[in-house]
Amino acid sequence: MDLDFVQIAKSAKKASLEIADLSSVIKNEALNKIAIAFEENKQGIFEANKQDLKDAEILVQKGEITQSTFNRLKLDENKMRDMIQGVRDIANLEDPIGKKLFVKELDEGLILTKVSCPIGVLGIIFEARPDVISQISSLAIKSSNAVILKGGKESKNTNKKILEIINCALKSVKGFPENVVQQVFSRDDVAQMLKCDEYINLIIPRGGNNLVKFIKNNTNIPVLGHASGICHIFVDKSADINMASKVVVDAKTQYPSACNAVETLLIHKDFDKADELLASLQLEEIKLVSNPEAWDIEYGDKILSYKFVNSADEAIEHINTYGSGHTDGIITSDMENAEKFMNKVDSSGVYLNASTRFADGFRYGFGAEVGISTNKTHARGPVGLEGLTIYKYKLTGNGHIVDDYVKGEKHFTHKTII
Amino acid sequence: MDLDFVQIAKSAKKASLEIADLSSVIKNEALNKIAIAFEENKQGIFEANKQDLKDAEILVQKGEITQSTFNRLKLDENKMRDMIQGVRDIANLEDPIGKKLFVKELDEGLILTKVSCPIGVLGIIFEARPDVISQISSLAIKSSNAVILKGGKESKNTNKKILEIINCALKSVKGFPENVVQQVFSRDDVAQMLKCDEYINLIIPRGGNNLVKFIKNNTNIPVLGHASGICHIFVDKSADINMASKVVVDAKTQYPSACNAVETLLIHKDFDKADELLASLQLEEIKLVSNPEAWDIEYGDKILSYKFVNSADEAIEHINTYGSGHTDGIITSDMENAEKFMNKVDSSGVYLNASTRFADGFRYGFGAEVGISTNKTHARGPVGLEGLTIYKYKLTGNGHIVDDYVKGEKHFTHKTII
Repeated sequence: MDLDFVQIAKSAKKASLEIADLSSVIKNEALNKIAIAFEENKQGIFEANKQDLKDAEILVQKGEITQSTFNRLKLDENKMRDMIQGVRDIANLEDPIGKKLFVKELDEGLILTKVSCPIGVLGIIFEARPDVISQISSLAIKSSNAVILKGGKESKNTNKKILEIINCALKSVKGFPENVVQQVFSRDDVAQMLKCDEYINLIIPRGGNNLVKFIKNNTNIPVLGHASGICHIFVDKSADINMASKVVVDAKTQYPSACNAVETLLIHKDFDKADELLASLQLEEIKLVSNPEAWDIEYGDKILSYKFVNSADEAIEHINTYGSGHTDGIITSDMENAEKFMNKVDSSGVYLNASTRFADGFRYGFGAEVGISTNKTHARGPVGLEGLTIYKYKLTGNGHIVDDYVKGEKHFTHKTII
Repeated sequence: MDLDFVQIAKSAKKASLEIADLSSVIKNEALNKIAIAFEENKQGIFEANKQDLKDAEILVQKGEITQSTFNRLKLDENKMRDMIQGVRDIANLEDPIGKKLFVKELDEGLILTKVSCPIGVLGIIFEARPDVISQISSLAIKSSNAVILKGGKESKNTNKKILEIINCALKSVKGFPENVVQQVFSRDDVAQMLKCDEYINLIIPRGGNNLVKFIKNNTNIPVLGHASGICHIFVDKSADINMASKVVVDAKTQYPSACNAVETLLIHKDFDKADELLASLQLEEIKLVSNPEAWDIEYGDKILSYKFVNSADEAIEHINTYGSGHTDGIITSDMENAEKFMNKVDSSGVYLNASTRFADGFRYGFGAEVGISTNKTHARGPVGLEGLTIYKYKLTGNGHIVDDYVKGEKHFTHKTII
């Protein structure tokens, strides 16, 4: 098994070097062919999915997976349509590769260009959601990265079928390299993946806290993602009661299991409509908890911890202590407090008078989303295609040597061209 | 000891939140005061350095450290002047924090701003070079990060003295937080640092391959750096012999122990001046090795492996197999091969007709350098102040909720403002 995974990783590395400078035209042709292949073969995908659902039904009855896992596993016409549209949307996005980030003259005839380029090989570990495989494969292709996918085992048949269709479509594209999109299935493969830092450049785990924490603790490959989403809203003394109620209700109830749903409400002790606010939340069937077991619980449900604080500073300190650096908001009409909050709260998203649920790549206008990162390096917050890129420096001279500059015979000009 | 390090790391975290939104004016005042304090107290630094040198002399005699380590440890008037000038240069650079990377209207009244911000707490592990402590402290202050420094033990007295002067200067700056720059001394502290992912956001090891590899393998904190610099130059069939000779001599001899010095020369088999090229290198006392023990040896000396290849493609494959992704060049007058080489070689720097020794933050015009990274995420190549930053998203609305967009009652405009 070891050898097998290393072979897969090696061939992914090779593929990554081949796709690195593939033209936008070929990459977009590949994506459009995938979309067409899905349309033409959707019955085959539904059949594979039915097999997975049959097995999953038994697991639901046994209590081994939840009904919501079952629902996420299920592909219907609507999801299929969105999945196909998603591939086409990614084809229509601007190519993130080969962008000139700057062009600088270091000296006469010595030109430095910073150009965006792919990261290399991505390892993606994701939940039993078959639509993810199409989305991630498309993002990888568009950003010229090779990818090794490991999906939730409950969606094994669907994933196999989808990848077969993707690779069949890719094979028909002239000039498109082999092994750009590959898939593995076992836990042992994941263990191998985490050790494979020679060939894999970035791991993106999607799914529960425990998975993400386990992966971060067991690899020295960079990991992009978030372990938890403990989001806060601070209702300041000067908040408008209607706005506060509306925003908190949306942040808690619009999709309670999302990572950007609010988990803790902080209320200024002098906010005179606090009772009214809490009552309005209860009216929306939000369960309020004033003495939670801990201040860093991610309920993922219509439950909300709350606490009164003495000041904006105390709210900021609470958030920086117990938060997960995901998304935190303030409701206020005091612009001084707003500015302080947004500068001092150390989170990927800091919001004024808006629901935390806006933390999302599509809502931010990125066109597609790899996931949300609470990292403090590389990419933070909702991550679009740009997060799958890095850059290289191209330097062109005509025989320039460093010794001339060290001896002072020549001098750098350092002129910005672009 | 454990508790001590965690206390240091906690106070660094606290300091990082306080310095995060400090004004450019205060940060620059702090840097200028450090420069003045160095000038006023340089005799004290020289005395501390003399103590270190006295101890180091014995180590040199015992053969425990090399003469070049001793030389790097030694502070003289010239190095002191450069060190002080370095602090002032960093003060004069543009503030990398608080830059608006984009401003976007998501919808009427709902404005998303991507703003550069500090990473948090940096852990820097560096060789026995006392000038580094001043440089790194200045870079950390300018980029609003807190820093924990661990220098080579041979420079202990000098480092202590320098940090005492830095912190004394910082104390005199009104509004400048405590504990932004701290120092630790023991191996045990390093072991603790590597485990301290709750408080430390980025580790930058400077020094030998083994140190960097050890650190990468023993922490789940992101690490920025390079383990080795196996740089190549490929002399194509169409190369100009004089240019080839001049560039290779510079890349090998200008500073042979630098990470951007060339280690392997690849020569196209049909380059008809190959003998002349090799002879010219030998004239410069470069020892040529045609059958090296391995193709990934970093000599750090005037020794050069060389090999004949059949094509540019073979050169590219050799580099992508044995290189370290640092800096690799081609000497050619064939623009098609040049373009292919620069697109296909997967290194942080890809050079045409220029010496690999240009791979350096100062030569690239960054004004200061944290180090050189061969990472494929966050920062690659010579890393300036920008590599010590990340970004956050600020969203301001006036009661905007997601439910309105999900229900289709409102629609995103996604207009770019800046």
